[in-house]
Formats: sequence, C-alpha cells, structure tokens
Amino acid sequence: MPSDDLSPDELSTDVVAPDVVSPDVVPPTPAEALRAFREFARDTLRGHDAEFDSGAEPPLELYRPLHKQGLLNWWLPAEYGGAGLGLADSVDIVSELAYADAGSAFTLLISILGSSMVRLYGSPELKERYLTAMTREPGYASALGSEREAGSELINLTTTLTRRGDQVVLDGEKMFSTNSGFADFMVVFAKEAGAKGVASYRAVLVPRGTPGAQVVKRWDMIGLRSAGTYQVRFTDCAVPAGNVLDGPGLKIIEVGLNSSRILIAAIALGVSRRIRDLCLEYAIGKPLGGHKLIENAVFASKIGQMEMQIEVMRNQCLAAAREYDEVMALPDPAREFLQRGALRSSLTAKMFCGQTGWQIATVGSEMFGGLGYTNDMPISKYLRDIRAVTIVEAGDDVLRELVFRRFVLPSNRRI
Amino acid sequence: MPSDDLSPDELSTDVVAPDVVSPDVVPPTPAEALRAFREFARDTLRGHDAEFDSGAEPPLELYRPLHKQGLLNWWLPAEYGGAGLGLADSVDIVSELAYADAGSAFTLLISILGSSMVRLYGSPELKERYLTAMTREPGYASALGSEREAGSELINLTTTLTRRGDQVVLDGEKMFSTNSGFADFMVVFAKEAGAKGVASYRAVLVPRGTPGAQVVKRWDMIGLRSAGTYQVRFTDCAVPAGNVLDGPGLKIIEVGLNSSRILIAAIALGVSRRIRDLCLEYAIGKPLGGHKLIENAVFASKIGQMEMQIEVMRNQCLAAAREYDEVMALPDPAREFLQRGALRSSLTAKMFCGQTGWQIATVGSEMFGGLGYTNDMPISKYLRDIRAVTIVEAGDDVLRELVFRRFVLPSNRRI
Amino acid sequence: MPSDDLSPDELSTDVVAPDVVSPDVVPPTPAEALRAFREFARDTLRGHDAEFDSGAEPPLELYRPLHKQGLLNWWLPAEYGGAGLGLADSVDIVSELAYADAGSAFTLLISILGSSMVRLYGSPELKERYLTAMTREPGYASALGSEREAGSELINLTTTLTRRGDQVVLDGEKMFSTNSGFADFMVVFAKEAGAKGVASYRAVLVPRGTPGAQVVKRWDMIGLRSAGTYQVRFTDCAVPAGNVLDGPGLKIIEVGLNSSRILIAAIALGVSRRIRDLCLEYAIGKPLGGHKLIENAVFASKIGQMEMQIEVMRNQCLAAAREYDEVMALPDPAREFLQRGALRSSLTAKMFCGQTGWQIATVGSEMFGGLGYTNDMPISKYLRDIRAVTIVEAGDDVLRELVFRRFVLPSNRRI
Amino acid sequence: MPSDDLSPDELSTDVVAPDVVSPDVVPPTPAEALRAFREFARDTLRGHDAEFDSGAEPPLELYRPLHKQGLLNWWLPAEYGGAGLGLADSVDIVSELAYADAGSAFTLLISILGSSMVRLYGSPELKERYLTAMTREPGYASALGSEREAGSELINLTTTLTRRGDQVVLDGEKMFSTNSGFADFMVVFAKEAGAKGVASYRAVLVPRGTPGAQVVKRWDMIGLRSAGTYQVRFTDCAVPAGNVLDGPGLKIIEVGLNSSRILIAAIALGVSRRIRDLCLEYAIGKPLGGHKLIENAVFASKIGQMEMQIEVMRNQCLAAAREYDEVMALPDPAREFLQRGALRSSLTAKMFCGQTGWQIATVGSEMFGGLGYTNDMPISKYLRDIRAVTIVEAGDDVLRELVFRRFVLPSNRRI
Repeated sequence: MPSDDLSPDELSTDVVAPDVVSPDVVPPTPAEALRAFREFARDTLRGHDAEFDSGAEPPLELYRPLHKQGLLNWWLPAEYGGAGLGLADSVDIVSELAYADAGSAFTLLISILGSSMVRLYGSPELKERYLTAMTREPGYASALGSEREAGSELINLTTTLTRRGDQVVLDGEKMFSTNSGFADFMVVFAKEAGAKGVASYRAVLVPRGTPGAQVVKRWDMIGLRSAGTYQVRFTDCAVPAGNVLDGPGLKIIEVGLNSSRILIAAIALGVSRRIRDLCLEYAIGKPLGGHKLIENAVFASKIGQMEMQIEVMRNQCLAAAREYDEVMALPDPAREFLQRGALRSSLTAKMFCGQTGWQIATVGSEMFGGLGYTNDMPISKYLRDIRAVTIVEAGDDVLRELVFRRFVLPSNRRI
Repeated sequence: MPSDDLSPDELSTDVVAPDVVSPDVVPPTPAEALRAFREFARDTLRGHDAEFDSGAEPPLELYRPLHKQGLLNWWLPAEYGGAGLGLADSVDIVSELAYADAGSAFTLLISILGSSMVRLYGSPELKERYLTAMTREPGYASALGSEREAGSELINLTTTLTRRGDQVVLDGEKMFSTNSGFADFMVVFAKEAGAKGVASYRAVLVPRGTPGAQVVKRWDMIGLRSAGTYQVRFTDCAVPAGNVLDGPGLKIIEVGLNSSRILIAAIALGVSRRIRDLCLEYAIGKPLGGHKLIENAVFASKIGQMEMQIEVMRNQCLAAAREYDEVMALPDPAREFLQRGALRSSLTAKMFCGQTGWQIATVGSEMFGGLGYTNDMPISKYLRDIRAVTIVEAGDDVLRELVFRRFVLPSNRRI
Repeated sequence: MPSDDLSPDELSTDVVAPDVVSPDVVPPTPAEALRAFREFARDTLRGHDAEFDSGAEPPLELYRPLHKQGLLNWWLPAEYGGAGLGLADSVDIVSELAYADAGSAFTLLISILGSSMVRLYGSPELKERYLTAMTREPGYASALGSEREAGSELINLTTTLTRRGDQVVLDGEKMFSTNSGFADFMVVFAKEAGAKGVASYRAVLVPRGTPGAQVVKRWDMIGLRSAGTYQVRFTDCAVPAGNVLDGPGLKIIEVGLNSSRILIAAIALGVSRRIRDLCLEYAIGKPLGGHKLIENAVFASKIGQMEMQIEVMRNQCLAAAREYDEVMALPDPAREFLQRGALRSSLTAKMFCGQTGWQIATVGSEMFGGLGYTNDMPISKYLRDIRAVTIVEAGDDVLRELVFRRFVLPSNRRI
Repeated sequence: MPSDDLSPDELSTDVVAPDVVSPDVVPPTPAEALRAFREFARDTLRGHDAEFDSGAEPPLELYRPLHKQGLLNWWLPAEYGGAGLGLADSVDIVSELAYADAGSAFTLLISILGSSMVRLYGSPELKERYLTAMTREPGYASALGSEREAGSELINLTTTLTRRGDQVVLDGEKMFSTNSGFADFMVVFAKEAGAKGVASYRAVLVPRGTPGAQVVKRWDMIGLRSAGTYQVRFTDCAVPAGNVLDGPGLKIIEVGLNSSRILIAAIALGVSRRIRDLCLEYAIGKPLGGHKLIENAVFASKIGQMEMQIEVMRNQCLAAAREYDEVMALPDPAREFLQRGALRSSLTAKMFCGQTGWQIATVGSEMFGGLGYTNDMPISKYLRDIRAVTIVEAGDDVLRELVFRRFVLPSNRRI
C-alpha cells in the first residue's frame, strides 16, 4: 500500500535490518547449539527481568547475535540455510531461553508455527523464498487464527478469502497473533467465499508490508511482556494465489500447533527451573529460627517436589518432541501429519507443563515472604509469564475436550 | 513539623487535611453501615481497576466520604467518636470494599491493627488523644514489626528502644508497614536495651512527624497497588515514655494481628466474589460451540465450586470475627487476649481464605482465554491482589507451624 | 411376621426389642448430651475398628444405652418424647460419634432424614404415632429415593403410587437406603399414577413389616460398614392414604436432605479429627533421623494444615446447622422450607467437608509408611469411611450444578 | 531342606513345583512378549477382582503359564535362560498386568529387586546358581530391608551379620518383604558386627529353606491383596560367606530399587488406565438428564485430564527405564551404578505416578455414584491398590528429601 495514507501503525518493512549470514557457516551440532543458547541466555538475557517486563517494544536487536551464529529459527532445515535442529533438540534450547526470559523465548520459538506450516504445505517457490529469507536476515514468522467472536474455535472464523484473478483477497480481523508486528510473513486463516465444508478453510502466507494488512494494536499482555502480540486487520488485502498453502486450513493449523505447543510447554520448564534456582539462592541467605531456610525440612520438601515435577515436565516435552521428529523423518511428513492431526503428546505436553508450572510458580510466590510480594523480586514476572502456557494456543478446557474426543472415545487410540 | 532537620521524605503531617465530623452524628446500625460501604464501593471505587493498579499514591481523598459518614475506622468505639462496629460486622464491609478494590480495602482495614493495640494496651491519655483524633479527621494508623534480617520472626528484631529521661528513643529500620507514609501514628516494635526476655519487647506509639522517623521508600508491590507499604527508618527518634504500650510486645502484636488477619481474610472473600461475577458477566456473552459459555456444564461446575468455597470462606471469617467480638465483650479483653494470644480461628481464617482465594483466582485466570492474558481484563489485578492474603502478616509455613505448636501439641486445645 | 407369603428377607418387625423410657426423664442440656455422646463414643465404640469394619450386621444393641439416656434420635422434639436438640448441637455429637466409628454415626444420624420429613409434612396422627414410637423404643427411620435407572435424579423415578380406596399402593424398587433393613418406618418416594408434573411426586410413610416391602439385599459397602444400606422392593405394597406426606415429593426430599447432609458433613469432621490424632499418636513414638517424627517440620506443617481445615469444616457445619435451626424456629418451618428448598449452606457443608476430609485422609494414609498400608493400622477404614461423605446424598458434580443453578444464576442469591 | 528343627512356619521349599523349560525356546521379541502379557492379563487375570482382593494366598499357579512362555522374570538375561527384556520393555508389560490385577503385577515385578542386586553384585557362582534357577522353574526373589524401628532408614537397621568360619550368620527381624513367603531366595540387609561405617552394611542371599529363616506372619495389606508381603525373622541363620554380595549394602539396595521403583510406578499407570476404561464403560450406559453420562461435558473434561496424566505417567516411566537400560548397557554397569546410586528419574517416576495415580483414583471413586461406594464395583480395590505406589519403597516425604539432597543441593546435578 505505497500510499500517503499509511498510518504509523502500518506493518513496517524495515523493523529489522538485513544481516547476511555467510553461506559457508558449518551448522552447529545440537550440543554446540545448546551451549550457544545457554551462553546467550546467560550473557545477554539474564538479569534484565525488569526491562523485559516493562512492556517496551520487543528487543529484537538483542536477538541478532543468534542470527549471526545461524541459530535464529534454529529448526529450519539446511536446505533453507538453517541449522536443522529437531524439536527434541529444541526443548532444552527453549528451556534455557525461558530460564532467562520467557517473553524472549516466546518471540523466538513462535516463528516455528508459521514457518512449519509453510515448510509442510507451502509450494516449493514459497518455501524457497520465505524460509530462506528467514535465515539470510533475522526473520520472524507469525500465524493468525483467533478472532473476537470465534475465539479459538476456528470453525467459526469470519475472515474471508476471495479469489480475484490470480490473487486471493483477505478481509477480516485477527485477535491475537504474536510477532505479527514485525514478522517477515504472516500465515493467515480465512474462510473461502463460496466454498463449503472443511475445504473452505484456507491458510495464506501474507508477506510483511502487504497493503491492507494493518496492526490495530499491540496487546498489553500480563506476562511475556518482552514479546509482542498484536491485533491485525485485513482490508482488501491481496496476495498471489500461490501463497495459499496446500491443504485444509483447520488441519494445517492443527499440524502447525504440534510444534509450537511443545515448545510453549518448554517455556514452563525453563521458568520452573528459574523459580527453583531463585528459591535456592534466596534460601541460602535467609535466616530462619537460628538456621538458614535452606536447612529447613519444609523447604527441602517443596524443592524436592519441584525437582520431581521439573524432570517429568522435561521428559514429557522430550517425548512429544521425539514423536514429532519421527513424523518429520518420514518420507511424506506433510501427508502423515494431515492424517494424524493434533498429536496427543503435544496437547498433553502443553496441558501438563502449564498446570505443573503454575503449581511451581504458586509455591515459589509464597517462598519469599513480604519481599516476594514486591517487584524487588522477579517472582511476579515469573508467575505472570508462566500463566501463558495454559492459556495460549487453546486453554485446558478446550484441550481436555479435544483429547477426550480424539484419543479416548476411539478406544483403540487410548494409551 | 517545622524543623530544619526534616528531610523531604520525612513523614508529612499534612497528607490529609482535617475534616471535622459533627459530634452529634448518630452512629449507623451495622446494616446501614454495610449499605453505605456497598454504595461507596460501587459508586466510588468500582470501575477504576487500572487506576488503582497503576501504583500512584494511595487515593486517600477518595476515602474522605467515608469519614464524613463516620465510617472511616468503623470499628472505633463510640467513646472515641467511632461507629463502634464489631469485627463480625466488618467481614462483609471489607468484602464489599475488596470486591471493588482490594488495595483500598487494605488501606482502610489495616488501621485496625495499630488502633486495636492502642485501644487495648495504651494508657487512657494515649487512647483519648490518638483514637479520638482518628475519628475527628480522616486518620490512619500503622504497625511496624518486620525487619530485613528478622523477617517476621519478631523475636530477632534489632530495632532498639532506649530510655532517656521521660522519653524513649528508637533506632532501627522497619521493612514492611502499610499506611506508614501517611498514618497519624505508627505502633513500632522494638527491643529495650538492657532488658531481658519477653519483657524486653516493646510496642511504642510514634506520632506522625516525629523527628527521626523517616520513610526510606514506598515498596513497589505486585498487588494491592492502591495501598502504600513503606520501609521506615528510626534514627534517634524520641517519644514520651507514656507512648509505650502496657504489656509484652510480642504478645501485643499477636493480639493486634487477631483483628487484622480476619479482615485480610475477608479481602480474599471480596476478591473471590468479584472474580465469580466477572466470570459470569463474561460467560453470558461468550459464544461456545453454538451456545453461550454460561450454558456450559464445565463452566457451571467451576462456578458452583467457587460459590461453595466463597460461602465457606465467609463463614470462617464470621466465626473468627465472632470469637474476637466475644473476647472484646468481656470485662477485661486486654488481659484475656494476653492470655489467649493468637486465636486459632483468626490464623485459620487467613490461611484458609488465602489458599482458597488463590484457587479461585487460578480458575478465574484461565476463564477468559487470550483476553484474560491481557490487561483489557482485570483478572491479573485480582490474581495479584489476592496473592497478598497468603503472604502478609505471616505466610502459611509460619502459621501452620504456629497452629501445630499452639493448638495441636497441647491435646486439650485441639478441636 | 404374620404372613405366610413373607420371605425370610421380609422386613422384620422385631429386630430391636422394646425398651421403654420412663416418661419423666428430664431432657439433657446440649452440653450434657454432648458429654454423654462423647463418653458413649469413647467407652462403647472406640477401639473396635476391625469389628465395625467387618461387615457384620449393624450393632444396634450397642446403641441401646443411648436410648436409655433418651439420646437416640436426639433431635426429636420434647412433644414426641425426644431430647429436642438442635442441629447446631448435633454437629459435635456426630463428630464425636464419627471420631469413634463413622458407620455408627451414619446409622444414628440418618434417621433424621426420614423423621424430619414426617415431622414437617406428616399429619398430626402420623407424627404422634411414628415419632413418638421412635423415642419410646429404640427406633430408626429410613428414606428411599434412589433407583437403578434414575440414580439420584429423582425426577426420573419409576416407583409408582396408585390410589386404591383409602389406601395407596407402591410398586417399584429402591436402590440405596440406609437403615431400611431394621427401620420402624421408611419414607418412600414414588410417582403417582395419573398425576402430572411436580405434584405427582409423593413421599409415603411405610411402616416396618408392611406386606409387599421386601429387602432385596444389603449392599456390601466399601466403608461405613457397621451401617446397613439396603436395596428394597415394593410389590403391591399398600399403606393408608394418610401415610402420604403433605406436599410435593421432590421438594420434601430436598427439605429432608438439608438436615442429613449437614450431619453427614460432620462425619468428615469427626473422622478427620480421628486421623489427626492417630497421626500424633504415631508420631510421638516414631523414630526419624535421630529424633521423633513429631519433632519433624514437615510433619508439623501437615498437621497444622489439617487443624486449620478441621476448624473450617466445623465452622461450616455449624453455620449451616444454625441456618437450619433458624428456619425450624419460625412459626411455619414446613412452609418456609418448601419455599427455600435446599439450603446452600447445607449443600456447601457436605461438599466442602467431603472434599477436605478426603484431603486429610489422603495425607493421613501416607503418614504411617508401610504399616499404614496394612490393616494393623485403621487408616484404610478411615479413608474408606470418609469417602462416603462426597458420595452419599448426591455427589459433587450434581451439587455443583445445583448450587450454580439455584444460587449463582439468580444474581440476588449469590453471596 | 528336610530338617527336624523346622517349624511349620519355616519357609517351605515346595510351594511351587518345578516346571522345566525346554532350553531351546527362542526368546520372544519385546513386541511378542508384550502381546503375550496382554493376552495373559486379559484371559487369565481380568474379571477376578473380588478373588484377588480376598486376601487368599498368592495365586502362583495362575502365573505358571508365563513361566512356560519363558516370561516369568522376563528381565533375566539370556545367559541365565531369561528373555532378556529391558526395563523400557517392562513398563508396558507391568502396565498390562496391573490393568488386570495390581497385586499380581506386584508379585511378578518385585523379583526384579532381589534378582537385579544378585545379577550386579553377586559372584559368578551365585548368579549361575540362583538366577538360572529362576528361569528353569517358576522362581521368585525377595529383598528384606525395612525393620520395625528403623523403618525405611536402613542406616539404623539392627539385623546383624556375624562371620563364623566360612559362613555368615544373620540375626534380626525384617518388617515388610514381598514374596518372601515363597521366594527361591531372599536378599537380606544386615549390619556386620565389628565393622564400621558404610562398609558394615551387607546384602546377603539367603536361599529358601535355610534354617533359622522364619516367616513370622503375612501382613494383611489394604491393597495389592493377591500379593504376599511378609515379616521374617532370622535366628542364627547361617549361609555361606560367598552369598554376601560384593559392595556396600546401602548402595546395593539403592541400585536395586532403581529397577523396582520404575516398575512400581508402572503399576499406577496400569491401574489408572483401568480406572479410565471403567469410567467409560459405566458412562456409556449411565443415563443423565435425558442423555448418557458419556455425552456430558464435565465427564469429558475429567477423562481428558486423566488421559493427559496417563500419557505423562507413561513417558516418565519410559524415560526412567531408558536411563536404567543405558547404564545396564555400559561395560561395567555394577560399578557405574555404585557411583550413581539412586537415579533421579526412578525416584521421580515413583513419586509422580503415585501422586497422579491417586488423583485419578480419587476422581474415579466419585464417578459411579452410590454404586461406586459398594463392592459391586471394583473401584475400591483400585483405589487401595494404587495407594501402594506412593507408600512402598519409601514414601514421598523421604523421596522429596532425597531428591533435594542428591539432585538439587549439588547445583550441577539439577535439571
């Protein structure tokens, strides 16, 4: 929309300046990558809780070093210039990031949702163009499903897709989408005018700066405040018909969520680990009845329980990630995923880690006495950050019902 | 307080301008008082969640109408110009206030802690002077126990009281005290130099503007943000020896906490009721699978459980309040309370309502989907506000141990 | 048993031999009554866990001393020869009984359900005849609502009531009814043939030994095993039309349950107190790391939490009981209760105490190591006994929905 | 062991008659084995809840078909005639067994504790003799640690081992040991007279029928009632010195428990799956408000949550089992295990599955209305069975403290 009437809110095309990666970078091994992320988290992210929690613009510049190491969007395959790490490798990566800042972890991981859908269901041209771009310069992706009325019931979405020549035109408004304010491309879900049934739901790639795509506002989130979640309006927004992904839209988003839900679960893992360590740091110095808190049996009991829960969270994330990676290693993962839809393990990972992380944060928030009720301690941030895990990408009520319908009613799908 | 050595942070004497109440106001009945508070909460406090949550200075001017109705410090007896309402009457009053704004409820109720200790253990002159003042103009009281090292283990406090002529001199620093930034008087706990054992702990009334009493900072609290909680330093701070309350300090604070803990518990009651109603307001309009959320069985189950919990919370608060009122109706409540110390029912009310309120807030925070993760909904405020109930005036670990030692080990004190 | 065609299972008329009480016994004060029950529980019931748990016939002979003291059916008013104790008095009575044996407590309290319905909705002749009989000789009552298909949804009951001359005839089968194997009378719920709507549901008093009323079996219950719960079949079972209680049957049972649910809640209170004390008895002697378990901080924390919960349980039972007693003190309690139906406080007491008692039993069952997994410790009995509180007289799912519909949807009925 | 001084209670040598397996049986693949166990569970164990719960003698004859298939003690390596299945294979095997009868699962799996310690720390002769015997005829093993005073704090054990020529002599009494009533051999923990420190704790293999080893009683367990757990007394009980395992006793038992704790956790998995399916079977037929329970949203929510929990339980068991198998695949697993001691993943599996299984059983026990409170439904058995998981082989308080000390305090061992 190269026109004078661009509002300042219009999606900018130059949020992040290009920063070309040398093509002959040797991709890191998973262990090297994990170490790099751990160092990045420790050296660049740690210790800035208050800034990250301030609600300032997403600190994309901070993440640029990851790009230089070839580790931004670490899951993109080598053919697009990526590090090609699997989801199982990603669990600890996200955990390390979230240990330092859950909002940054969210910004960095959520591109997997849009990019995975393009990777699996985009045309070769689309993939070549948009996935490669994400590794050449620091790139982000977003996905836009939820709407005000429909909520997360995408079957009720009202954003329309209309065919016009060799273009498709989008009209409607999307409620919550993270990264859309600066993403290279958005994957937008819409209902095709005139089409019927499940085939009418479509996923469409909309590049940054496409006229008619406008950020309505950035949401003032209660946590993950270093991330940016946006409301976006599409008004006569036209893109090439080739940008429509190949497959039924409702299934494509289910498949995409398989990856992001597992990594969102890993946020709970990372924040829980941080809370545990904060408790320990505090308890070492805290006097209690002539001793230190760390010597107290009730404290030991609480932290022992936390450690147990943390291990179980991690193993569930890893199990789900391995199942995902196994499908991706099949000859035709796109087709296999269309058949399988949502993986139980992925749904389960998000549910379990959200619930358990909240329990840990609850215990943590009672650990520091009055000090824990002030912003001199970061526990309020962790509590608000971890709350997201249960809420984003469908809440537990929705997921319990989905698990019941998909994996319990058909008795042969039960564990 | 015209003195050269007052720093700008020195406790101001003019935060609240006098606003004399006509002496012939007929005190309201409990039912009238409750209605007045309900109207005040609805008309003056409701609908300003964001402002109250902003962390601005405590909005004392907003509470002035209560003073005009003779309802600020509603528990003060008629002999000091008060409305003379009992603690049982106060439970629903605080619930109504907290329904609208928990921080305001906290500001208004917490004066009961300091004023009750003065009422029970102050000299006639002290009572006449300071309690009457609280009803003649809008007055507040505070209490200062906790210290950095000692935490809430007051036996380890290090603030000293030294006798000097007919004065006592305080030196030390107090960690968390609500209302101290503007209170008419503070009740400060200190250890008398040279004295030994429990008799060495003293409670001293320090009037506003006393030289040497300095607010170090207002804490940036995670909730109850319309209230003001302060760190206060005492440096060679001298007051008349007659300002020392009559009795062992550690017991006096226990007695004082009997009243405030019950009313803090009632904050959880009020916020829980608000969360329930917010859920219902939302559910009426929220589409879900072709119906509305309010018709959903899982929703009904959650709210039915909340309602049950709310009733139990209220009954526990009332039972504790009635026990308190019964002691206050005895010929010598001061002495009786010294013998009984902490009431189990009061400890229990705070523990139970803190735990249960948190459960309700947890369910509430998952009720609104993505919207509930934004500040467009006030649920984050309620979650942070209600968290205080478990934390202030001793956390559950401390209280469980206290209940065990006082009311379980002596088998004849068990229920 | 004057009938040839009575099977041996027919309801016996002579289970309990008459044991006439002198008419000039002065009724005990509540405090005296409580003391008597406490002594009875301690001297007669305590220490026989294994026997009570054996599933032998209900030990009615054991309860005869209560009758001699005028305390069996302690709630019956003086006009029928009873002690006239209120429900608030009954909470601690049931708690003391259940402390010793929950099954005995259940047998003894459950007569309140049938007798209260007769007291409120029976004709003067019916009351005179059947309630007085309960105090003259050791008498029990039962109520029969649930059916196999209908479950606790009484609106679906299929037992029929047919008018035949001045008699009504019952046909159908009732699933669970406690005391029916030996009760003086049963209050049976049936649907009147030909009638329509709520008026078609009827409550009918069926005296013991009525031909056509046959115990099908005694259920093998998992707990409360000293009580007797029976399946009863009615085949052309005729009683005088005057035995039909006056009022809509579904409302009458709701009213009746107000009393029994509160006292069932008090079972959880009593068993919880017993579990707490068992833990303490064990911990005093149990070595742990060079000390005794009772000195362990985690133990103290668990028991402190239990004590808190026990106090809250008791206060909720008392609050509900007082509300019930207040209605009973009105000029026309029968009419008032028909208007109010189920009391929220009563529903809430059963829900809360059932849930909380189960939490306490859960903690208790983990307290004794391997020994607690054997029947050398009575904890398994307590766990199974207390489980009943949530299950009998409608489970939590039903009650949550009822509370929601009755007390939340009408916004003016919310707390 | 035909000797005059054997009391009738003396451990019998002929509980299970020999039943030689042909040496050329080809060991089954893991998938075949799992199928065989599933069929065995379905065809032989299912549907006998009441019998298994009766407390009759352990039904060893029922398990003989497993022996014929070479699947009794399925973890024993091929060199001793075993099927050589790993622990990861064993998780689903135990889950299938426990789905049918948790007590049978316990009897069958618990031999892994004694046999693993012998396999890792026994002399070649000991292994050759006793492990091979377990595959040649239906053989069982047991382990004897706990004592009355010491509880599970083995450091305080008082059973003594005294050297006498080339024999060692045991004296003392062991509290709880499953299978000891019929096991081929027992591994007994004792303290060597005269020795000091950790080296003084010894693990000794005591063959069945050794004079001086006497079963004092079989415990009357609250659940797992088809298994047999015994109290055993050793009086001047002499075995060859070569029967002493090689290594520090306290470490050897820790290592042994690594295997059994994982499989005990898998009992919770199997029973939970059974409870889920029982709920579904019931809900299909249960009318509720004009529909069936299975169509109810609250029901779906509960079962969806269960399914989630079941998946997480299984993944945690598998993760722990794989870690165990990895150590066993090292060149010197015995040494590696001595260094590592208790695996966090194993402790965690038992803790998590015990806690989660109990939650599932709690929900299950409220699912069936009054029927679920009778023994016409097997839910009481499942509730009591699953309770064991938290209690046996150390309770959660002990394990939380252990996890804290071993895996949290050393910060480099944290997850």
